Amino acid sequence: MEISEYILSLEKRAKAASAALNCASDATRCAVLEKIAEAVEKESAAILRANEKDLENAAANGVAPQMLDRLKLTESRLGGMADAVRALIRLPDPTAGEKTWTTPAGLTIHEKKVPLGVVAMIYEARPNVTLDAAALCIKSGNAAVLRCGKEAIETSAALRDCICNALESCGLPRDCVVLVERTEREGANALMTIRGYIDVLIPRGGKGLIQNVVENAKVPVIETGAGNCHVYIEKTADLDMARRIIENAKVQRPSVCNAAECLLCDRAIAKEFLPLLEADMVRCGVEIRADANCIGLFQHAVPATEEDFFTEYNDLILSVKLVETVDEAIEHINLHGTKHSEAIVTRDGEAAKRFTERIDAAAVYVNTSTRFTDGGEFGYGAEIGISTQKLHARGPMGLAALTTVKYVVTSDGAVRK
Amino acid sequence: MEISEYILSLEKRAKAASAALNCASDATRCAVLEKIAEAVEKESAAILRANEKDLENAAANGVAPQMLDRLKLTESRLGGMADAVRALIRLPDPTAGEKTWTTPAGLTIHEKKVPLGVVAMIYEARPNVTLDAAALCIKSGNAAVLRCGKEAIETSAALRDCICNALESCGLPRDCVVLVERTEREGANALMTIRGYIDVLIPRGGKGLIQNVVENAKVPVIETGAGNCHVYIEKTADLDMARRIIENAKVQRPSVCNAAECLLCDRAIAKEFLPLLEADMVRCGVEIRADANCIGLFQHAVPATEEDFFTEYNDLILSVKLVETVDEAIEHINLHGTKHSEAIVTRDGEAAKRFTERIDAAAVYVNTSTRFTDGGEFGYGAEIGISTQKLHARGPMGLAALTTVKYVVTSDGAVRK
Repeated sequence: MEISEYILSLEKRAKAASAALNCASDATRCAVLEKIAEAVEKESAAILRANEKDLENAAANGVAPQMLDRLKLTESRLGGMADAVRALIRLPDPTAGEKTWTTPAGLTIHEKKVPLGVVAMIYEARPNVTLDAAALCIKSGNAAVLRCGKEAIETSAALRDCICNALESCGLPRDCVVLVERTEREGANALMTIRGYIDVLIPRGGKGLIQNVVENAKVPVIETGAGNCHVYIEKTADLDMARRIIENAKVQRPSVCNAAECLLCDRAIAKEFLPLLEADMVRCGVEIRADANCIGLFQHAVPATEEDFFTEYNDLILSVKLVETVDEAIEHINLHGTKHSEAIVTRDGEAAKRFTERIDAAAVYVNTSTRFTDGGEFGYGAEIGISTQKLHARGPMGLAALTTVKYVVTSDGAVRK
Repeated sequence: MEISEYILSLEKRAKAASAALNCASDATRCAVLEKIAEAVEKESAAILRANEKDLENAAANGVAPQMLDRLKLTESRLGGMADAVRALIRLPDPTAGEKTWTTPAGLTIHEKKVPLGVVAMIYEARPNVTLDAAALCIKSGNAAVLRCGKEAIETSAALRDCICNALESCGLPRDCVVLVERTEREGANALMTIRGYIDVLIPRGGKGLIQNVVENAKVPVIETGAGNCHVYIEKTADLDMARRIIENAKVQRPSVCNAAECLLCDRAIAKEFLPLLEADMVRCGVEIRADANCIGLFQHAVPATEEDFFTEYNDLILSVKLVETVDEAIEHINLHGTKHSEAIVTRDGEAAKRFTERIDAAAVYVNTSTRFTDGGEFGYGAEIGISTQKLHARGPMGLAALTTVKYVVTSDGAVRK
């Protein structure tokens, strides 16, 4: 079978199964989640054996140690994954809460929240995402088509078995969650382009994946995760606070999308601030890449290129640039940023207002680290990803991002005049 | 200049101008709308002269009379257009109403409603849409890039002058609304594909336009308007009500997207109902295209092909098909429909429930004509279009569909632990 035919057949199976899950009650969906958590615990030996196979294959193929670590499961990690599934049970039903009104023509309009239908996710070699994505889809009443990185396929298949058994034991079709088991690259492209079965495709991964999806998708997409985030130190900033914020934003977890990649420093305070910054960064092992206007203020910085200012390092590297005004900072960020998370450190209320109004990003921070852009930190309970687009969902996405509305209209034979 | 360079230059101008309008108060935006309405009235002679030119060119190019009618403006139509602009002034500010909460980490999170930024619209030769689209964008704080059908370009340019003068007189950049004045077909493709300036593209027009946008767009899109709508007469239906509803849905305004194109009839009532239906349709001048299972019950029907069941006629034609069960009706609609508006006529509450739950469409009607899917009928005041997609906006779109959210987060130096 051609890979595109294979993907189409999976999509048709998920679509056919989806109606039962779309209409299932929250109680049924939560019962499935509890069964999944139990199965993951009960089948842990089989899942870990599958994971061992993945790890052996990956090591044989020369996969990098950092990726092996993300791929590796343990009893303890599996327990954490089962707990995360159970945590979803306690969250409110994302399809609850309809609005109802009547109109002069005699209609009663019910605006109902409903699942999107079939959600596809493309992600990398992280088996925990297989479980997490399936659980988020089930809690929100959506069928799921899951395509993980090929390195995690054995583990994901073992987890899929737990998920499908749980669905079946609650009277729902196994095909409510399907896993793409053929891992050719063209499979991802088929998922992006076959119209009519997938209601939304959510890519979770690096810049290359997101870019490929945005350029080629013909199905609806929610872009997630690219984060070239800035911290701007305005001239009235409390410099001790500025140091704490940039250190946290850069160093606390440099591999994630809400970590800072670039510091913009007001020229008026550069001579005082940048040497303090350098001391902190050296202590934390961060390389500084500075523009020509400020490189002389550092002992160890290397010159930044224009490309640096467009780069999400996800690493212990920080680019630094001088700016003259708030507006120059805003202009730089709106040109180079990815509309994710942007921060200003200032004691000037007017500067803060201008920055928060004019910066075009999901989250704009005043005197706060960019690291807080996160569903948990925002109080959303569960997170599907962080949207960097403006349509449908923006910023940390909770379960509501996997729903849409449907109008159900009743009357006693009303016709339009 | 290449057409794609020209479009890029327009997009850059609109983007650069957009910040001022994005941050403008509702009072300022409404002042612009009032100035526009005044200008349209004051400059009516110039606008009608431009319209005369369009009409002459269109007639010389053999444009169909129906399109000429849509193109033609009169003093009275211009007055109606100015009134529609003023009606927007009275609507609530779509960017009002922020949510604020605090988190255990000490953050204050403001979820603000903000304009999308720059909205592009591609539409046909209807000059009223130029004014309407610009006014909707201004009311919601968005800059606009407008591309009308080439037949309406002179009129649209005259209206654009009124709009830009109004913007300027209220201290806003003229480029907040730009009109694509080069009408090569490739201009539309450039609008769909140049990324980085357009926050959403809304096509308003026929199936060919929507299809082209969906297949080729690389910018975010809201699909509108395709409506292959069904009325299903379930076996318990009140047949008099069924006749009133199908006549209204088919005949009251057959050219619009929420008109019905197909009748599904329960086999159990076909012998009684279809002759009554035929009498009504003959009286209204509607051609019936019937499937092989029921064509024998009509005097004058022609055979329906499978293609008929996929066709939005927008004309006095009705396809008719027999079904055995509610589920067969649901399956037919979910396969052939365009997720727009679907109706069931029934006295069986269980049948209605199953139909409304399982039909995948923006609006699902019980004992009600499909013609009510409309921003005005739903009570939304203004309508940008009718979304047939599930992301961001579904069904009749009010001004809220032209907004997104932005999180503004403040604290006193909070860092993540």
